[in-house]
Amino acid sequence: MRDVLEALSDGDIGIPEAESRLSGYATTDAGRFDAARETRRGIPEAILAEGKTPEEAARLARTAVQTTGRALVTRADPAIGEAVIAAVTDEFPDANIDHDERTRTIVAHTPEFQRPDLDAEVAIVTGGTSDAPIAGEAAVIAREVGVGVELIEDVGVASLVRILDQIDRIREADVIIVAAGREGALPTVVAGLVDAPVIALPVATGYGVGGEGEAALYGGLQSCTVVTTVNVDAGFVAGAQAGLIARRIAVAREA
Amino acid sequence: MRDVLEALSDGDIGIPEAESRLSGYATTDAGRFDAARETRRGIPEAILAEGKTPEEAARLARTAVQTTGRALVTRADPAIGEAVIAAVTDEFPDANIDHDERTRTIVAHTPEFQRPDLDAEVAIVTGGTSDAPIAGEAAVIAREVGVGVELIEDVGVASLVRILDQIDRIREADVIIVAAGREGALPTVVAGLVDAPVIALPVATGYGVGGEGEAALYGGLQSCTVVTTVNVDAGFVAGAQAGLIARRIAVAREA
Amino acid sequence: MRDVLEALSDGDIGIPEAESRLSGYATTDAGRFDAARETRRGIPEAILAEGKTPEEAARLARTAVQTTGRALVTRADPAIGEAVIAAVTDEFPDANIDHDERTRTIVAHTPEFQRPDLDAEVAIVTGGTSDAPIAGEAAVIAREVGVGVELIEDVGVASLVRILDQIDRIREADVIIVAAGREGALPTVVAGLVDAPVIALPVATGYGVGGEGEAALYGGLQSCTVVTTVNVDAGFVAGAQAGLIARRIAVAREA
Amino acid sequence: MRDVLEALSDGDIGIPEAESRLSGYATTDAGRFDAARETRRGIPEAILAEGKTPEEAARLARTAVQTTGRALVTRADPAIGEAVIAAVTDEFPDANIDHDERTRTIVAHTPEFQRPDLDAEVAIVTGGTSDAPIAGEAAVIAREVGVGVELIEDVGVASLVRILDQIDRIREADVIIVAAGREGALPTVVAGLVDAPVIALPVATGYGVGGEGEAALYGGLQSCTVVTTVNVDAGFVAGAQAGLIARRIAVAREA
Amino acid sequence: MRDVLEALSDGDIGIPEAESRLSGYATTDAGRFDAARETRRGIPEAILAEGKTPEEAARLARTAVQTTGRALVTRADPAIGEAVIAAVTDEFPDANIDHDERTRTIVAHTPEFQRPDLDAEVAIVTGGTSDAPIAGEAAVIAREVGVGVELIEDVGVASLVRILDQIDRIREADVIIVAAGREGALPTVVAGLVDAPVIALPVATGYGVGGEGEAALYGGLQSCTVVTTVNVDAGFVAGAQAGLIARRIAVAREA
Amino acid sequence: MRDVLEALSDGDIGIPEAESRLSGYATTDAGRFDAARETRRGIPEAILAEGKTPEEAARLARTAVQTTGRALVTRADPAIGEAVIAAVTDEFPDANIDHDERTRTIVAHTPEFQRPDLDAEVAIVTGGTSDAPIAGEAAVIAREVGVGVELIEDVGVASLVRILDQIDRIREADVIIVAAGREGALPTVVAGLVDAPVIALPVATGYGVGGEGEAALYGGLQSCTVVTTVNVDAGFVAGAQAGLIARRIAVAREA
Amino acid sequence: MRDVLEALSDGDIGIPEAESRLSGYATTDAGRFDAARETRRGIPEAILAEGKTPEEAARLARTAVQTTGRALVTRADPAIGEAVIAAVTDEFPDANIDHDERTRTIVAHTPEFQRPDLDAEVAIVTGGTSDAPIAGEAAVIAREVGVGVELIEDVGVASLVRILDQIDRIREADVIIVAAGREGALPTVVAGLVDAPVIALPVATGYGVGGEGEAALYGGLQSCTVVTTVNVDAGFVAGAQAGLIARRIAVAREA
Amino acid sequence: MRDVLEALSDGDIGIPEAESRLSGYATTDAGRFDAARETRRGIPEAILAEGKTPEEAARLARTAVQTTGRALVTRADPAIGEAVIAAVTDEFPDANIDHDERTRTIVAHTPEFQRPDLDAEVAIVTGGTSDAPIAGEAAVIAREVGVGVELIEDVGVASLVRILDQIDRIREADVIIVAAGREGALPTVVAGLVDAPVIALPVATGYGVGGEGEAALYGGLQSCTVVTTVNVDAGFVAGAQAGLIARRIAVAREA
Repeated sequence: MRDVLEALSDGDIGIPEAESRLSGYATTDAGRFDAARETRRGIPEAILAEGKTPEEAARLARTAVQTTGRALVTRADPAIGEAVIAAVTDEFPDANIDHDERTRTIVAHTPEFQRPDLDAEVAIVTGGTSDAPIAGEAAVIAREVGVGVELIEDVGVASLVRILDQIDRIREADVIIVAAGREGALPTVVAGLVDAPVIALPVATGYGVGGEGEAALYGGLQSCTVVTTVNVDAGFVAGAQAGLIARRIAVAREA
Repeated sequence: MRDVLEALSDGDIGIPEAESRLSGYATTDAGRFDAARETRRGIPEAILAEGKTPEEAARLARTAVQTTGRALVTRADPAIGEAVIAAVTDEFPDANIDHDERTRTIVAHTPEFQRPDLDAEVAIVTGGTSDAPIAGEAAVIAREVGVGVELIEDVGVASLVRILDQIDRIREADVIIVAAGREGALPTVVAGLVDAPVIALPVATGYGVGGEGEAALYGGLQSCTVVTTVNVDAGFVAGAQAGLIARRIAVAREA
Repeated sequence: MRDVLEALSDGDIGIPEAESRLSGYATTDAGRFDAARETRRGIPEAILAEGKTPEEAARLARTAVQTTGRALVTRADPAIGEAVIAAVTDEFPDANIDHDERTRTIVAHTPEFQRPDLDAEVAIVTGGTSDAPIAGEAAVIAREVGVGVELIEDVGVASLVRILDQIDRIREADVIIVAAGREGALPTVVAGLVDAPVIALPVATGYGVGGEGEAALYGGLQSCTVVTTVNVDAGFVAGAQAGLIARRIAVAREA
Repeated sequence: MRDVLEALSDGDIGIPEAESRLSGYATTDAGRFDAARETRRGIPEAILAEGKTPEEAARLARTAVQTTGRALVTRADPAIGEAVIAAVTDEFPDANIDHDERTRTIVAHTPEFQRPDLDAEVAIVTGGTSDAPIAGEAAVIAREVGVGVELIEDVGVASLVRILDQIDRIREADVIIVAAGREGALPTVVAGLVDAPVIALPVATGYGVGGEGEAALYGGLQSCTVVTTVNVDAGFVAGAQAGLIARRIAVAREA
Repeated sequence: MRDVLEALSDGDIGIPEAESRLSGYATTDAGRFDAARETRRGIPEAILAEGKTPEEAARLARTAVQTTGRALVTRADPAIGEAVIAAVTDEFPDANIDHDERTRTIVAHTPEFQRPDLDAEVAIVTGGTSDAPIAGEAAVIAREVGVGVELIEDVGVASLVRILDQIDRIREADVIIVAAGREGALPTVVAGLVDAPVIALPVATGYGVGGEGEAALYGGLQSCTVVTTVNVDAGFVAGAQAGLIARRIAVAREA
Repeated sequence: MRDVLEALSDGDIGIPEAESRLSGYATTDAGRFDAARETRRGIPEAILAEGKTPEEAARLARTAVQTTGRALVTRADPAIGEAVIAAVTDEFPDANIDHDERTRTIVAHTPEFQRPDLDAEVAIVTGGTSDAPIAGEAAVIAREVGVGVELIEDVGVASLVRILDQIDRIREADVIIVAAGREGALPTVVAGLVDAPVIALPVATGYGVGGEGEAALYGGLQSCTVVTTVNVDAGFVAGAQAGLIARRIAVAREA
Repeated sequence: MRDVLEALSDGDIGIPEAESRLSGYATTDAGRFDAARETRRGIPEAILAEGKTPEEAARLARTAVQTTGRALVTRADPAIGEAVIAAVTDEFPDANIDHDERTRTIVAHTPEFQRPDLDAEVAIVTGGTSDAPIAGEAAVIAREVGVGVELIEDVGVASLVRILDQIDRIREADVIIVAAGREGALPTVVAGLVDAPVIALPVATGYGVGGEGEAALYGGLQSCTVVTTVNVDAGFVAGAQAGLIARRIAVAREA
Repeated sequence: MRDVLEALSDGDIGIPEAESRLSGYATTDAGRFDAARETRRGIPEAILAEGKTPEEAARLARTAVQTTGRALVTRADPAIGEAVIAAVTDEFPDANIDHDERTRTIVAHTPEFQRPDLDAEVAIVTGGTSDAPIAGEAAVIAREVGVGVELIEDVGVASLVRILDQIDRIREADVIIVAAGREGALPTVVAGLVDAPVIALPVATGYGVGGEGEAALYGGLQSCTVVTTVNVDAGFVAGAQAGLIARRIAVAREA
């Protein structure tokens, strides 16, 4: 910190640079919801709709579009979806808005918005039909980071051939997300077959004891292979982390 | 119940038969620790040494040999092992006694004792070296029931080929016990490949959250295939249940 | 694995056999949902409706009938029931469809479908009225495997005579499922009286601490007798495992 | 409260009586550890040794003998036992002291001490050998309250006849404590057969998940019969509560 | 057991007596739902409505009235209440039926039914308004056993005087139930002031962690005084156990 | 932040002040372990010995004395105590060092060190002998903050008079810490009687389920009065927070 | 206690004073819901609406206004809000009533009511939009105690600058409440930067494992800084405790 | 799978390639413990010593050196360390062996062994002294993968400047592991300041409720920023995953 302050004191750098270097945040006239997060973190700020009123979610989404040209809303129920779409189109009638009810995500872009186009790929593998909504949330996020996404569905561990005949596709990815509920054995099996980093995404599809996704989470935490884990149903986190990793790889490739 | 009582009242059956039909238990001069359990259940009574003093375990083991020609002690530490062996050999100098320290089991037979020899086989599959003691306990029990036991070790899910190249051996069994710790994915993978009943035997080999075997237990309870489960480290229960199933099959085969 | 590959390489076996021996799965023109599971596992593939939309469940059910002549749907609410029945009868107007609302199961057969008829019997014992829906799910599955099912209801542990006067019927079975909620003492009491394998099926009928079926599950896991356990309300798993065991016995009998 | 204060203000009662009626506690020169607890509660004050140093336990025990003629120490390890005995015999060389290592209890009486002799009986039923130490703690406490105690051991639920042939003895008691570990089914089975109040005393004799006595505790809390429960290994509480109930009955009998 | 069988065999006793002494159950023409439970246990059989359909509850209630002159239904929602009342009044138009919506209990008596009138009293103490429904359930049950019930409400531990000025009323009871939610301190405070047995009845009135009644349950299980505990919201069990104890005392008084 | 940076840029403040205002931390030649924490937080930095080697703890303690004239070590076992004392006296032979084995704390002062002397008082109330070590840790910390500490021990909730006859002393304090194990009812009872803020300090003195202090923690979190809570056995945190509050009051008093 | 009784006995004090000094409670004609709590505790009695019927809440609120000139209702849903407002305005048509739906609080004052006006300030810091309702509940309570409240919102830990640029405002407060959900890191970060006491107020805004506020609660209990904690969503407790502390400081200031 | 089998059948590929492409595993004469894992996964196989006997660990380590020129043992206590070193040096007297007691790791290299030297860097950040052993385990693993490791210690969240003055060093890494115990706030704070992927490594350094690392784990799972998590104390997994990611980046850089 001392060097930044000395530099500022000596006039070598200006206040905005000092602030930015100290805090990783640049204040602009547009307020706090600006490009800072993406600049600082490489991933877009998302609005978690759950726990917010439709009005709150809509107001935040409009600010997001105003300041960054994009809004990204997760866990949006239909009422929130309606409010967000109304608020955004009211000010940006020609925005492209995609509200996917199964994944409960809303993505809005102004026509001018340019999503990054990075040379790296994330594979998202699911065990079954019930894992699709959460896997889809991860896919939406990773795509917004700008990396390629390959969805490989219905790769159930109860029938190994369904994994083995997809393994070549899976091995082509730079990062792999494995979304699985119930006992969560799939991330372990996949991670034993590939040399890319694997992220376990537990899904709350079971029933009985451990059925709120705890068993699947434990499947990641105790895996005898090497995987890192996110919380149950945390599609956003898995997608964003995979995006961060893939972006690093793409940057290295482009260098 | 009424018919038994009527039959007794009418003199059609005697008291012992009435008692036995009502309770599944026949009192003999030798006291309560007799062949009743094996007669009634088909599995030998075992002495769980944990929570007992060496003297208590030794006294029970001697009674077991006196009344059934056999003693079966589980979870025996060295002090208990010593006490049991001393107590049994004191009265039965020519008994065959096998104390296995890794599985913590003691089996004692009088020379006259005839273990059943049944035409059915249990496969016991383990994920790794650390699962061996608990799997071994299951093996000892199943062998005492009289069925064949095939130990197939080190079939880790982190490397599928290690399963696939053993699958033919596994498929030859009538019942399969899969002992696995950590995330407990192995029972699910094995059960997806065979048509015999599979019993998941979770082992407490992990660490961190879920590492006392809870993760492995959840792996069985939430399995997306068909398995039944026993408690963590319950090698005795898994071996006895597998023995019960295999015995039924052997009986059917012999008919 | 090596021998299969050598056999294929030498031309001793063809590709489908190699694939099948390696993976336990045979690809046909009808797609992945074919007789493979039943061939491989001996139990029919079931569609777990919970967590799926009515459309998804209906589509899977129709495919099941197309490829195997049968569909088996569990945990189906009324909306799913309607969708499934509509989808199946649309293509198979003369199919026999049984939708049982209490057990939430749907079974559909084409007229040509021949369910196996095996010489073995499963007893399903319940503690009380509230256990009936889950016990019924187990019964449906076991019947579809092709074994005989005997339902013995209202055998509460709070009144021992209700067990004792049914014990002869229970003892006639080859495998016994005991469905019980609350403290789950019934599987332990029954297992002490019989020599067939007992599967504890915990039911979520309690209240207060441990009342989501955890107490009943612990009753199975900690039982001082020999039982294996399935998850809370896992009627499908209990029924399928009992069916697998009974099928083995029936096969042995027929040999 | 107002009437007591008015009575005191009017001089109708003295300060000690006022204090005693307000607080259930009578201060004497001997300090706080006097007969107040037994007077107020009907059960002797016990010293829980666990968590105290041998010196602290010994000092409290000596005070107990000084003020009430009796000391009652629970969960005493050998070092505490030695310290307590030394401290009591140092001042009361002719005291009767009983230190039972299996139940970890110490009871000391001065020769003058008169234990109540009440006309009521507590039965203490155990499932097996491992339950004996905790059941024994309950027995010691109940005897010190002054009621009769009948120990009925080894009444395992895995073999019903062992219960049925003791049921007449059990039915003679006024209150029944059932000490059981593992799945804790025994209190439920006993309570279904008697009309006296039953107290479930869970014992920590299991292993694996639920094996620290939680399964046995749940067995009491979720029982489908009527039992009240104490904490795991709480022999003191079970014995004292049974004593309180039996004392009430004895008092009614004597009236 | 042997003596009963010998007596029967010798003709000293008849079959019904033998059956009854062996099982605590007497079969009559009216089927299993007869006076046996009350005879055997001293408490009336209650129908737990939760988890049953209105039709099931109504059918059981009608059978109860037919065989014992009384029905007792707990945890009944309005739909069940309606069905039960309709079913009972359909056959017994002059039955007295009391459906209390706050405690969710239904009590039906035929005009001929004579409730026992016992000389013993149960005090039911509550901490606050929210504990009233569960305390009320306990009161209904205890009254049906035939003992006197004194409800002492709003005795919050946050203001000691509210306890102290009721303590004389509380001390008059033979048994005390203390219903309390939140941290469940009240049973401990009350038990320190009385010499009658105290039963802690935890109520699920909290929020946040431990707020489903677990904190209140722990308050009973870990109490530094002597109390026994029932499960969260188990008003029926607390009331029935208090009734059993009070009945014993009343019987002793009358002797 | 912007104003600080502008002030620095304009030369209105120097770098140390800017750094300090931005971060609450002032770097000195003595390294990071200086008076900053006490300056910033008002409470001395303490060294938590648990999880550190004796060498690590000793090195940190010596640095603490070097830079602040005082060291404060908590949860120190005998080996750590020896190492710390040796390291400090080696460099400061005339330091005053107090190592209290019961509370496991070490306090070292150079002769020059001046502890603050603040006009405010903390009362620390305990339920029984076993709570003393943890309560003592809190007392040590509060004294080092410089406030008065009044220890009021053995105020058990099982005997209300023991609280009532101390309540006047308790009411004189500005802040009250209530250390209690088992069911943790004492903080609730005390908080109902005073108008000073109460901090619940749960102690791990129970046994069975909830006996590692969870029950006592829940007693604080669910209290129907107003208390804040610290973790189980967190004597340091309770003492420091009470110190912070009392210090604020003392400062206001002195103003 | 003895001195109070002696003083009363000697006629030095009257009965009301004796009662008040003994119990901290003064009985008046207006019944139990009077100024006693505020007198005794310094915080107004609040009515927790959850778990009460609208009628019960309304009746209690009217009594509160009658006896203290104020009613304070928390966790009130719309139906309760309506009932409370109707009941209060029915008797006090000119009362000022504020029902805030987001915080679910109702505050009613008679025109004559004088809220204290204390010279001390509480800062309430939130991490994000979803924490606002619970933080608002705390604010309402603190204001009713009479202290100043400063709400500082949206201080997320994911972007440190949002904390740093508010830290001067936060440092001006006498007590600080930090309301945060998810991982609950904010209280720890804030407490590291200030010298006022910090109260962690965990909020249930997460999802997946630990998402009911447990993670945020653990964030307070395990904090490596000094904070005390309240239960999840316990805005009332946090606000009242902060009020108690601030009031003490204000009183000291005024002295 | 079909194409591989067709290629083999057509003679286009040989058996080893087919086996390798199907299973990711190549059998060699040296047995199963060869370079396959590193080939397949990119990370060396490690021997988890915990749960194994010294002999088992030593035998596995020697095989590792024989087949890959390297052995990597984790969680090795002194006895295991001695056995491993003896076994390796017996056969490879000139091997370089590093046994670090603090991290409990053993690394052995033959002189010929060439560790990869990759152009990518992992930063490992710790909160305090107690996190060092687990962080060190992660460092050892990452170094064996061949990437650069930068250890940045003592970055406690309780004093933000300690983070801010290291942030530039942290930002230079390609992947960041943040090892933290207690409340686990540090990964969230760091992740808010960087654009590289962050892995949370919870450490079991707390006490009381949540103190076995659960609080720290929840800190990662519920983080309001983007982090993935490993199990408590899983230094190996964190280091290996960071290595996998860094290796991918290095490969991309080199391309």
